[in-house]
Amino acid sequence: ADAAAGKVKAQQCAVCHGPNGLATAPDAPNLAGQPALYTAAQLKAYRSGERKHEVMAVMAKPLSDADIDNLAAWFASIKVTAQMP
Amino acid sequence: ADAAAGKVKAQQCAVCHGPNGLATAPDAPNLAGQPALYTAAQLKAYRSGERKHEVMAVMAKPLSDADIDNLAAWFASIKVTAQMP
Repeated sequence: ADAAAGKVKAQQCAVCHGPNGLATAPDAPNLAGQPALYTAAQLKAYRSGERKHEVMAVMAKPLSDADIDNLAAWFASIKVTAQMP
Repeated sequence: ADAAAGKVKAQQCAVCHGPNGLATAPDAPNLAGQPALYTAAQLKAYRSGERKHEVMAVMAKPLSDADIDNLAAWFASIKVTAQMP
């Protein structure tokens, strides 16, 4: 997969998922650091309609398998740390 | 919502989602820092079967609405940072 190509493709995701993959919309998930297998499976589920979401159906429809793998690789490449409260 | 109660309830999530909410299983998402609205909506979707996943169906079935809100509050309270590569 080509994370750099994924980074370009991910520009359209930034409005809800944030420029660095930390969600800006209150009802959207963080994508930064998400395991690539998980992200790819969700994008394919949105593309096929197996998983339903109005906006994500539109976003995922035009994506090729390569786009999906690149996006998944890009988000997985963002390093995240978690600090317990 | 009671994040402390959520932390106790979240012990059963750690095996796949990690002790600090960063996924240990390759096909599971990170939960650390996920917006509470999103996490709660997904748990309810797994509980009702609107969203399908073998393991999550079993995990979500016994959860009350309060459990779900507490879990969502707990994971949202974990501070995450994202470092772009």
